[in-house]
Amino acid sequence: MSDSPDAVISTSKAAARIRAAAVDAFADAGYGGTTTRDIAARLDMSPAAMYPHYRSKEELLFAISYEGHTEALKVVEDANLPEEGPSVRLRELISVFASWQASHHCLARVVQYELTALTPGHYRTVVALRRNMTQVVRNAVDAGVASGEFTIPDAEGVTLALMSLCVDVCRWFPAGNYTDPKDIGDLYGDLALRMVGAN
Amino acid sequence: MSDSPDAVISTSKAAARIRAAAVDAFADAGYGGTTTRDIAARLDMSPAAMYPHYRSKEELLFAISYEGHTEALKVVEDANLPEEGPSVRLRELISVFASWQASHHCLARVVQYELTALTPGHYRTVVALRRNMTQVVRNAVDAGVASGEFTIPDAEGVTLALMSLCVDVCRWFPAGNYTDPKDIGDLYGDLALRMVGAN
Repeated sequence: MSDSPDAVISTSKAAARIRAAAVDAFADAGYGGTTTRDIAARLDMSPAAMYPHYRSKEELLFAISYEGHTEALKVVEDANLPEEGPSVRLRELISVFASWQASHHCLARVVQYELTALTPGHYRTVVALRRNMTQVVRNAVDAGVASGEFTIPDAEGVTLALMSLCVDVCRWFPAGNYTDPKDIGDLYGDLALRMVGAN
Repeated sequence: MSDSPDAVISTSKAAARIRAAAVDAFADAGYGGTTTRDIAARLDMSPAAMYPHYRSKEELLFAISYEGHTEALKVVEDANLPEEGPSVRLRELISVFASWQASHHCLARVVQYELTALTPGHYRTVVALRRNMTQVVRNAVDAGVASGEFTIPDAEGVTLALMSLCVDVCRWFPAGNYTDPKDIGDLYGDLALRMVGAN
Protein backbone atom coordinates (compact mmCIF):
# COMPACT_ATOMS: atom_id res chain seq x y z
CA MET A 1 0.00 0.00 0.00
CA SER A 2 1.24 3.50 -0.76
CA ASP A 3 0.33 6.90 0.59
CA SER A 4 -1.87 7.51 -2.43
CA PRO A 5 -5.50 7.69 -1.34
CA ASP A 6 -6.51 5.76 -4.48
CA ALA A 7 -4.48 2.79 -3.32
CA VAL A 8 -5.83 2.90 0.22
CA ILE A 9 -9.27 1.45 -0.13
CA SER A 10 -8.53 -1.86 -1.71
CA THR A 11 -11.69 -3.38 -3.08
CA SER A 12 -10.41 -6.89 -2.34
CA LYS A 13 -12.62 -8.84 0.03
CA ALA A 14 -9.66 -9.65 2.26
CA ALA A 15 -8.75 -5.98 2.69
CA ALA A 16 -12.37 -5.06 3.42
CA ARG A 17 -12.57 -7.80 6.06
CA ILE A 18 -9.37 -6.52 7.67
CA ARG A 19 -10.73 -2.97 7.79
CA ALA A 20 -13.99 -4.19 9.35
CA ALA A 21 -12.11 -6.22 11.98
CA ALA A 22 -9.94 -3.18 12.74
CA VAL A 23 -13.02 -0.99 13.30
CA ASP A 24 -14.35 -3.57 15.78
CA ALA A 25 -10.98 -3.84 17.52
CA PHE A 26 -10.56 -0.07 17.80
CA ALA A 27 -14.14 0.21 19.10
CA ASP A 28 -13.38 -2.34 21.83
CA ALA A 29 -9.92 -1.27 22.98
CA GLY A 30 -9.25 2.10 21.34
CA TYR A 31 -6.66 2.64 18.63
CA GLY A 32 -3.87 2.96 21.20
CA GLY A 33 -4.89 -0.26 22.93
CA THR A 34 -5.01 -2.37 19.76
CA THR A 35 -2.14 -4.14 18.00
CA THR A 36 -2.04 -5.45 14.41
CA ARG A 37 -1.75 -8.89 16.04
CA ASP A 38 -5.14 -8.31 17.80
CA ILE A 39 -6.74 -7.43 14.47
CA ALA A 40 -5.25 -10.43 12.67
CA ALA A 41 -6.38 -12.70 15.53
CA ARG A 42 -10.00 -11.60 15.01
CA LEU A 43 -9.77 -13.02 11.49
CA ASP A 44 -7.75 -16.14 12.36
CA MET A 45 -5.01 -14.64 10.26
CA SER A 46 -1.32 -14.34 10.99
CA PRO A 47 0.12 -10.81 11.14
CA ALA A 48 2.32 -11.88 8.20
CA ALA A 49 -0.76 -12.65 6.10
CA MET A 50 -2.15 -9.19 6.86
CA TYR A 51 1.08 -7.43 5.92
CA PRO A 52 0.59 -7.41 2.10
CA HIS A 53 -2.72 -5.57 2.65
CA TYR A 54 -1.77 -3.18 5.45
CA ARG A 55 1.78 -2.82 6.71
CA SER A 56 0.91 -1.08 9.94
CA LYS A 57 -1.90 -0.17 12.27
CA GLU A 58 -1.61 3.44 11.14
CA GLU A 59 -2.07 2.43 7.47
CA LEU A 60 -5.24 0.65 8.50
CA LEU A 61 -6.48 3.68 10.42
CA PHE A 62 -5.78 5.83 7.38
CA ALA A 63 -7.67 3.42 5.09
CA ILE A 64 -10.64 3.39 7.48
CA SER A 65 -10.61 7.18 7.94
CA TYR A 66 -10.22 7.83 4.23
CA GLU A 67 -13.03 5.43 3.35
CA GLY A 68 -15.36 6.80 6.06
CA HIS A 69 -14.77 10.42 5.14
CA THR A 70 -15.13 9.69 1.41
CA GLU A 71 -18.43 7.88 1.96
CA ALA A 72 -19.84 10.61 4.20
CA LEU A 73 -18.72 13.31 1.75
CA LYS A 74 -20.42 11.46 -1.12
CA VAL A 75 -23.68 11.19 0.83
CA VAL A 76 -23.58 14.92 1.58
CA GLU A 77 -22.61 15.90 -1.98
CA ASP A 78 -25.40 13.74 -3.42
CA ALA A 79 -27.87 15.54 -1.15
CA ASN A 80 -26.63 18.97 -2.18
CA LEU A 81 -29.38 20.53 -4.31
CA PRO A 82 -28.41 24.12 -5.14
CA GLU A 83 -31.40 24.30 -7.51
CA GLU A 84 -33.72 24.05 -4.51
CA GLY A 85 -34.18 26.99 -2.16
CA PRO A 86 -31.62 27.36 0.67
CA SER A 87 -33.98 25.98 3.33
CA VAL A 88 -34.77 22.75 1.49
CA ARG A 89 -31.09 22.41 0.61
CA LEU A 90 -29.77 22.94 4.15
CA ARG A 91 -32.40 20.74 5.75
CA GLU A 92 -31.54 17.90 3.38
CA LEU A 93 -27.77 18.23 3.88
CA ILE A 94 -27.99 18.18 7.68
CA SER A 95 -30.59 15.46 7.66
CA VAL A 96 -28.54 13.03 5.56
CA PHE A 97 -25.29 13.76 7.39
CA ALA A 98 -26.86 13.30 10.83
CA SER A 99 -28.54 10.06 9.85
CA TRP A 100 -25.34 8.75 8.20
CA GLN A 101 -23.49 9.39 11.47
CA ALA A 102 -26.20 7.41 13.29
CA SER A 103 -26.27 4.50 10.81
CA HIS A 104 -22.47 4.24 10.81
CA HIS A 105 -21.78 5.18 14.41
CA CYS A 106 -19.11 2.53 15.09
CA LEU A 107 -17.11 3.44 11.99
CA ALA A 108 -17.73 7.14 12.58
CA ARG A 109 -16.35 6.97 16.13
CA VAL A 110 -13.04 5.63 14.84
CA VAL A 111 -13.04 8.14 12.02
CA GLN A 112 -13.81 11.10 14.30
CA TYR A 113 -11.90 10.37 17.48
CA GLU A 114 -8.65 8.75 16.33
CA LEU A 115 -7.69 11.36 13.71
CA THR A 116 -4.72 12.62 15.69
CA ALA A 117 -3.05 9.20 15.50
CA LEU A 118 -2.57 9.61 11.72
CA THR A 119 0.83 10.57 10.28
CA PRO A 120 1.01 14.25 9.27
CA GLY A 121 0.62 13.37 5.56
CA HIS A 122 -2.38 11.13 6.13
CA TYR A 123 -3.90 13.66 8.51
CA ARG A 124 -3.67 16.36 5.82
CA THR A 125 -5.41 14.10 3.29
CA VAL A 126 -8.29 13.37 5.66
CA VAL A 127 -8.59 16.98 6.83
CA ALA A 128 -8.96 18.06 3.19
CA LEU A 129 -12.01 15.77 2.88
CA ARG A 130 -13.45 17.25 6.09
CA ARG A 131 -12.90 20.74 4.77
CA ASN A 132 -14.78 19.84 1.56
CA MET A 133 -17.71 18.57 3.59
CA THR A 134 -17.82 21.70 5.74
CA GLN A 135 -17.67 23.81 2.58
CA VAL A 136 -20.77 22.12 1.13
CA VAL A 137 -22.72 23.08 4.27
CA ARG A 138 -21.16 26.54 4.42
CA ASN A 139 -22.19 27.21 0.81
CA ALA A 140 -25.80 26.38 1.67
CA VAL A 141 -25.67 28.67 4.72
CA ASP A 142 -24.15 31.48 2.63
CA ALA A 143 -26.78 31.01 -0.09
CA GLY A 144 -29.54 31.44 2.50
CA VAL A 145 -27.92 34.56 3.91
CA ALA A 146 -27.45 35.99 0.39
CA SER A 147 -31.10 35.39 -0.50
CA GLY A 148 -32.28 36.88 2.81
CA GLU A 149 -33.90 33.57 3.81
CA PHE A 150 -31.51 33.01 6.75
CA THR A 151 -30.60 35.43 9.53
CA ILE A 152 -27.54 34.35 11.46
CA PRO A 153 -25.09 35.91 13.89
CA ASP A 154 -21.99 34.48 12.14
CA ALA A 155 -21.80 32.06 9.20
CA GLU A 156 -18.54 30.46 10.39
CA GLY A 157 -19.86 29.82 13.90
CA VAL A 158 -23.24 28.51 12.77
CA THR A 159 -21.63 26.17 10.22
CA LEU A 160 -19.23 24.93 12.90
CA ALA A 161 -22.19 24.23 15.21
CA LEU A 162 -24.17 22.46 12.47
CA MET A 163 -21.23 20.18 11.60
CA SER A 164 -20.50 19.57 15.28
CA LEU A 165 -24.10 18.59 16.00
CA CYS A 166 -24.00 16.00 13.22
CA VAL A 167 -20.54 14.64 14.08
CA ASP A 168 -21.44 14.08 17.73
CA VAL A 169 -24.36 11.81 16.81
CA CYS A 170 -21.90 8.91 16.51
CA ARG A 171 -20.88 9.36 20.16
CA TRP A 172 -24.34 9.05 21.72
CA PHE A 173 -26.43 7.14 19.16
CA PRO A 174 -28.68 5.34 20.02
CA ALA A 175 -30.23 7.08 23.07
CA GLY A 176 -33.69 7.08 24.63
CA ASN A 177 -36.39 7.25 21.97
CA TYR A 178 -33.84 8.12 19.30
CA THR A 179 -32.90 4.71 17.94
CA ASP A 180 -33.80 5.18 14.26
CA PRO A 181 -31.31 7.15 12.13
CA LYS A 182 -34.25 8.56 10.15
CA ASP A 183 -35.69 10.19 13.30
CA ILE A 184 -32.35 11.89 13.98
CA GLY A 185 -32.24 13.11 10.39
CA ASP A 186 -35.74 14.58 10.65
CA LEU A 187 -35.10 16.27 14.00
CA TYR A 188 -31.72 17.67 12.98
CA GLY A 189 -33.03 18.95 9.64
CA ASP A 190 -35.65 20.94 11.57
CA LEU A 191 -33.14 22.18 14.14
CA ALA A 192 -30.76 23.31 11.39
CA LEU A 193 -33.46 25.58 9.94
CA ARG A 194 -34.09 27.02 13.38
CA MET A 195 -30.37 27.61 13.94
CA VAL A 196 -30.08 29.66 10.75
CA GLY A 197 -33.29 31.55 11.52
CA ALA A 198 -34.94 30.38 8.28
CA ASN A 199 -38.09 32.36 7.59
CA MET B 1 -8.97 4.01 47.30
CA SER B 2 -12.44 2.55 47.40
CA ASP B 3 -15.37 2.65 44.99
CA SER B 4 -16.94 5.42 47.03
CA PRO B 5 -17.01 8.61 44.96
CA ASP B 6 -16.12 10.62 48.08
CA ALA B 7 -12.81 8.81 48.33
CA VAL B 8 -11.99 9.22 44.66
CA ILE B 9 -10.93 12.81 44.39
CA SER B 10 -8.16 12.97 46.91
CA THR B 11 -7.30 16.55 47.66
CA SER B 12 -3.66 15.65 48.24
CA LYS B 13 -1.26 17.46 45.93
CA ALA B 14 0.34 14.18 44.89
CA ALA B 15 -2.99 12.66 43.82
CA ALA B 16 -3.91 15.82 41.88
CA ARG B 17 -0.55 15.73 40.09
CA ILE B 18 -1.09 12.07 39.17
CA ARG B 19 -4.55 12.84 37.78
CA ALA B 20 -3.16 15.75 35.71
CA ALA B 21 -0.36 13.55 34.33
CA ALA B 22 -2.88 10.86 33.46
CA VAL B 23 -5.04 13.34 31.52
CA ASP B 24 -1.94 14.36 29.51
CA ALA B 25 -0.96 10.74 28.92
CA PHE B 26 -4.47 9.72 27.82
CA ALA B 27 -4.60 12.77 25.53
CA ASP B 28 -1.34 11.71 23.88
CA ALA B 29 -1.80 7.95 23.52
CA GLY B 30 -5.44 7.27 24.36
CA TYR B 31 -6.56 5.39 27.45
CA GLY B 32 -5.94 2.02 25.78
CA GLY B 33 -2.44 3.03 24.73
CA THR B 34 -1.33 4.24 28.17
CA THR B 35 0.07 2.20 31.07
CA THR B 36 0.29 3.21 34.74
CA ARG B 37 4.06 3.00 34.18
CA ASP B 38 3.78 5.71 31.46
CA ILE B 39 1.88 7.96 33.85
CA ALA B 40 4.35 7.43 36.70
CA ALA B 41 7.26 8.09 34.33
CA ARG B 42 5.84 11.53 33.50
CA LEU B 43 6.19 12.41 37.19
CA ASP B 44 9.55 10.72 37.73
CA MET B 45 7.70 8.41 40.09
CA SER B 46 7.89 4.66 40.39
CA PRO B 47 4.65 2.72 39.76
CA ALA B 48 4.97 1.54 43.37
CA ALA B 49 4.90 5.13 44.64
CA MET B 50 1.73 5.77 42.64
CA TYR B 51 0.00 2.68 43.98
CA PRO B 52 -1.15 4.10 47.36
CA HIS B 53 -2.98 6.86 45.46
CA TYR B 54 -4.40 4.90 42.51
CA ARG B 55 -4.15 1.14 42.27
CA SER B 56 -4.95 0.89 38.58
CA LYS B 57 -5.35 2.85 35.39
CA GLU B 58 -9.12 2.36 35.61
CA GLU B 59 -9.21 3.87 39.13
CA LEU B 60 -7.43 6.89 37.73
CA LEU B 61 -9.87 7.15 34.84
CA PHE B 62 -12.76 6.96 37.30
CA ALA B 63 -11.22 9.68 39.48
CA ILE B 64 -10.72 11.92 36.44
CA SER B 65 -14.21 11.23 35.07
CA TYR B 66 -15.86 11.71 38.43
CA GLU B 67 -14.00 14.96 39.06
CA GLY B 68 -14.69 16.29 35.54
CA HIS B 69 -18.38 15.47 35.66
CA THR B 70 -18.77 16.86 39.18
CA GLU B 71 -17.11 20.12 38.20
CA ALA B 72 -19.18 20.53 35.04
CA LEU B 73 -22.37 19.69 36.92
CA LYS B 74 -21.54 22.30 39.58
CA VAL B 75 -20.95 24.97 36.92
CA VAL B 76 -24.29 24.16 35.30
CA GLU B 77 -26.18 24.00 38.62
CA ASP B 78 -24.71 27.33 39.70
CA ALA B 79 -25.94 28.87 36.43
CA ASN B 80 -29.44 27.46 36.87
CA LEU B 81 -31.72 30.39 37.66
CA PRO B 82 -35.33 29.18 37.81
CA GLU B 83 -36.40 32.61 39.09
CA GLU B 84 -35.42 34.09 35.71
CA GLY B 85 -37.59 33.52 32.66
CA PRO B 86 -36.99 30.30 30.69
CA SER B 87 -35.07 32.07 27.89
CA VAL B 88 -32.56 33.76 30.20
CA ARG B 89 -32.24 30.52 32.14
CA LEU B 90 -31.65 28.27 29.12
CA ARG B 91 -29.26 30.70 27.45
CA GLU B 92 -27.16 30.88 30.60
CA LEU B 93 -27.10 27.10 31.13
CA ILE B 94 -25.98 26.34 27.57
CA SER B 95 -23.56 29.23 27.54
CA VAL B 96 -21.69 28.15 30.68
CA PHE B 97 -21.65 24.47 29.74
CA ALA B 98 -20.34 25.16 26.22
CA SER B 99 -17.62 27.48 27.49
CA TRP B 100 -16.64 25.03 30.24
CA GLN B 101 -16.19 22.33 27.59
CA ALA B 102 -13.96 24.75 25.64
CA SER B 103 -11.89 25.86 28.65
CA HIS B 104 -11.39 22.26 29.80
CA HIS B 105 -11.22 20.55 26.42
CA CYS B 106 -8.30 18.21 27.23
CA LEU B 107 -9.92 16.96 30.43
CA ALA B 108 -13.34 16.87 28.77
CA ARG B 109 -12.07 14.66 25.92
CA VAL B 110 -10.92 12.01 28.39
CA VAL B 111 -14.14 12.38 30.36
CA GLN B 112 -16.37 12.11 27.27
CA TYR B 113 -14.64 9.58 25.07
CA GLU B 114 -13.20 7.00 27.46
CA LEU B 115 -16.38 6.37 29.50
CA THR B 116 -16.81 2.84 28.20
CA ALA B 117 -13.48 1.79 29.72
CA LEU B 118 -14.92 2.24 33.24
CA THR B 119 -16.01 -0.78 35.28
CA PRO B 120 -19.80 -1.22 35.33
CA GLY B 121 -20.05 0.21 38.87
CA HIS B 122 -17.93 3.25 38.08
CA TYR B 123 -19.78 3.74 34.80
CA ARG B 124 -23.11 3.82 36.66
CA THR B 125 -21.80 6.45 39.08
CA VAL B 126 -20.62 8.71 36.27
CA VAL B 127 -23.75 8.19 34.18
CA ALA B 128 -25.85 9.31 37.16
CA LEU B 129 -23.97 12.63 37.16
CA ARG B 130 -24.55 12.99 33.41
CA ARG B 131 -28.23 12.30 33.91
CA ASN B 132 -28.42 15.03 36.56
CA MET B 133 -26.82 17.50 34.18
CA THR B 134 -29.22 16.61 31.36
CA GLN B 135 -32.12 16.98 33.79
CA VAL B 136 -31.12 20.55 34.67
CA VAL B 137 -31.29 21.49 30.98
CA ARG B 138 -34.44 19.46 30.41
CA ASN B 139 -36.18 21.27 33.28
CA ALA B 140 -35.38 24.62 31.67
CA VAL B 141 -36.69 23.39 28.30
CA ASP B 142 -39.87 22.07 29.93
CA ALA B 143 -40.37 25.35 31.82
CA GLY B 144 -40.24 27.27 28.54
CA VAL B 145 -42.71 24.90 26.91
CA ALA B 146 -45.04 25.17 29.91
CA SER B 147 -44.96 28.97 29.84
CA GLY B 148 -45.52 29.04 26.08
CA GLU B 149 -42.19 30.81 25.54
CA PHE B 150 -40.65 27.85 23.65
CA THR B 151 -42.11 25.93 20.71
CA ILE B 152 -40.33 22.65 20.08
CA PRO B 153 -40.96 19.46 18.13
CA ASP B 154 -39.90 17.15 20.99
CA ALA B 155 -38.40 18.06 24.40
CA GLU B 156 -36.31 14.86 24.62
CA GLY B 157 -34.79 15.34 21.16
CA VAL B 158 -34.09 19.04 21.58
CA THR B 159 -32.47 18.48 24.99
CA LEU B 160 -30.35 15.68 23.51
CA ALA B 161 -29.23 18.02 20.71
CA LEU B 162 -28.44 20.86 23.14
CA MET B 163 -26.31 18.60 25.35
CA SER B 164 -24.64 17.06 22.31
CA LEU B 165 -23.74 20.45 20.87
CA CYS B 166 -22.04 21.43 24.14
CA VAL B 167 -20.27 18.09 24.68
CA ASP B 168 -18.75 18.11 21.18
CA VAL B 169 -17.04 21.46 21.78
CA CYS B 170 -14.18 19.60 23.49
CA ARG B 171 -13.51 17.62 20.29
CA TRP B 172 -12.99 20.59 17.96
CA PHE B 173 -12.05 23.52 20.21
CA PRO B 174 -10.24 25.70 19.23
CA ALA B 175 -11.12 26.15 15.52
CA GLY B 176 -10.89 29.07 13.10
CA ASN B 177 -12.01 32.30 14.75
CA TYR B 178 -13.42 30.41 17.73
CA THR B 179 -10.50 30.35 20.12
CA ASP B 180 -12.06 32.06 23.14
CA PRO B 181 -14.38 29.96 25.31
CA LYS B 182 -16.48 33.08 25.94
CA ASP B 183 -17.25 33.42 22.22
CA ILE B 184 -18.45 29.79 22.11
CA GLY B 185 -20.63 30.44 25.14
CA ASP B 186 -22.22 33.52 23.53
CA LEU B 187 -22.82 31.80 20.18
CA TYR B 188 -24.23 28.64 21.74
CA GLY B 189 -26.49 30.55 24.13
CA ASP B 190 -28.02 32.28 21.08
CA LEU B 191 -28.30 29.06 19.10
CA ALA B 192 -30.02 27.32 22.04
CA LEU B 193 -32.77 29.93 22.05
CA ARG B 194 -33.23 29.46 18.31
CA MET B 195 -33.38 25.68 18.70
CA VAL B 196 -36.22 25.92 21.22
CA GLY B 197 -38.03 28.53 19.11
CA ALA B 198 -37.93 31.12 21.91
CA ASN B 199 -40.23 34.02 21.17
